[in-house]
Amino acid sequence: MISDLTLITLLDLLGTFAFAISGLKFASGKNIDWFGAYIVGLVTAIGGGTLRDLLLDVKPFWMSEPRYLLTTGVALMTAIIFKKKIFKMGATLFLFDTIGLGIFTIVGISKSLAFGFPVWVCITMGTITGSVGGVLRDVLINEVPLLFRKDIYALACVAGGIVYFICLKIPIPANFAEIIGASSVILFRILAVKYHLHLPTLPSIHDD
Amino acid sequence: MISDLTLITLLDLLGTFAFAISGLKFASGKNIDWFGAYIVGLVTAIGGGTLRDLLLDVKPFWMSEPRYLLTTGVALMTAIIFKKKIFKMGATLFLFDTIGLGIFTIVGISKSLAFGFPVWVCITMGTITGSVGGVLRDVLINEVPLLFRKDIYALACVAGGIVYFICLKIPIPANFAEIIGASSVILFRILAVKYHLHLPTLPSIHDD
Amino acid sequence: MISDLTLITLLDLLGTFAFAISGLKFASGKNIDWFGAYIVGLVTAIGGGTLRDLLLDVKPFWMSEPRYLLTTGVALMTAIIFKKKIFKMGATLFLFDTIGLGIFTIVGISKSLAFGFPVWVCITMGTITGSVGGVLRDVLINEVPLLFRKDIYALACVAGGIVYFICLKIPIPANFAEIIGASSVILFRILAVKYHLHLPTLPSIHDD
Repeated sequence: MISDLTLITLLDLLGTFAFAISGLKFASGKNIDWFGAYIVGLVTAIGGGTLRDLLLDVKPFWMSEPRYLLTTGVALMTAIIFKKKIFKMGATLFLFDTIGLGIFTIVGISKSLAFGFPVWVCITMGTITGSVGGVLRDVLINEVPLLFRKDIYALACVAGGIVYFICLKIPIPANFAEIIGASSVILFRILAVKYHLHLPTLPSIHDD
Repeated sequence: MISDLTLITLLDLLGTFAFAISGLKFASGKNIDWFGAYIVGLVTAIGGGTLRDLLLDVKPFWMSEPRYLLTTGVALMTAIIFKKKIFKMGATLFLFDTIGLGIFTIVGISKSLAFGFPVWVCITMGTITGSVGGVLRDVLINEVPLLFRKDIYALACVAGGIVYFICLKIPIPANFAEIIGASSVILFRILAVKYHLHLPTLPSIHDD
Repeated sequence: MISDLTLITLLDLLGTFAFAISGLKFASGKNIDWFGAYIVGLVTAIGGGTLRDLLLDVKPFWMSEPRYLLTTGVALMTAIIFKKKIFKMGATLFLFDTIGLGIFTIVGISKSLAFGFPVWVCITMGTITGSVGGVLRDVLINEVPLLFRKDIYALACVAGGIVYFICLKIPIPANFAEIIGASSVILFRILAVKYHLHLPTLPSIHDD
């Protein structure tokens, strides 16, 4: 874990807030009521970490600490009070969401590493932690997951995870490696969006 | 657990039957065959309790007792024999479904409480037990979950769970608290439907 | 387990490859990028076994061995290099997919049996192992699961599982029972497709 617990907690909650807002944003205008929107926001924020913890066979992280459910509640209240304004803060939300992605990925990797899993399992868990929430969000609101269609997202988790393990190998102390790894995820994603980098798609079997 | 084991078992199976019928009803007319319909019915009936048990890290309840799979089979046979008649018994099905919701919620809460989880985790688990089956049903038949769009449903679980914990605090003996808690879920839902109570929705970000 | 470990491993990887290709095929032409397609392929290939392992509370099989993630990578490269050609090999892919179904089903049953579960749980786990991957694939690409709509698929798993337990009862040695069970799943599915066998659907409540 990054040494400064207060900072990591703060960033973790910021990521949770940003992920929850992203869930609420997608739920808005879909005739989904406040409580339904809360659930979509919550699943977006905690879905990835929950699947990771089920796979690792440890107690889901949000069951030890009410702060994730509360943060999602704060996100809902923010969305209700500031209405569309909050969803229109595109660049700010993107930044929060990307910070969340970076933190969640590295938290998922460190947690798996602490259980002694090999590098490839850790990177997979980091990617699951960072991106499954958004996939569940899209399944719940009945869309093809955005992750599959838009810019580098899960791939930024994989790339940042590789950077993290290279740092550990050098060796750079764990806390610094975590900061560099999370920053790499964030940087990769921002660069991918800025320069419209994306992977090709598979051709349709119906095209000719 | 409610003291009279026969009664609770009977109500539990009634709830399972009602939830399974609800799954079958949604699967009907979607070009889904009998076995597919059975699976949709089964997931509706046991999905919530299964997720709860995975989160609590205990053996999924339906793996100890074939009665849940059998009850879903009985529901399928009922649907095949009585065809559309059964799906048209709107008020009866609503009552069964609501009784199921009340029972499942309190079963989920008591089980979590027995594992020593705090109140807020127990209420969350009760709500998951009561409502996730319907969400999975809607995801499987490719609809936006009804839970998010229609009347007070998951919120009735939360409210009934709070009543249950107030009862325990007074203190009212556990069995009575369970009966009162389950009845509260049922009552809240019936009142919400009768008086068209519902929460507001989040405004669309595209509206202006 | 079937005695010849090399053969079973080979068939297991062939099944994984076929399931992954099926995921890639469904993802193609949906504006899903390579990495998204990889994830859809992976979920198709390992989704059923992962749910089984979560329910049995054992470490998900693919976390012990990188070969499932690698095989999916090979499937992706094959799909990229041979483009539409691979998806047009209908009969070959169907055969691979069906062999995968047979193997996965019996692997799921044997694993559950080794944990001492009763016959009906084992058959359920075999069916989950064989068919949940395809259901998750369809949920991810936002379709009503094909499993529910098309030919005998999950039912072939159940029928093959019953044959397997009859063999054990006779008794036929476990390895032979496994071969006979897997072959039965494969045979049932091929016969069902060849003779257009399918179960009736539930009538629509809106029809009259």
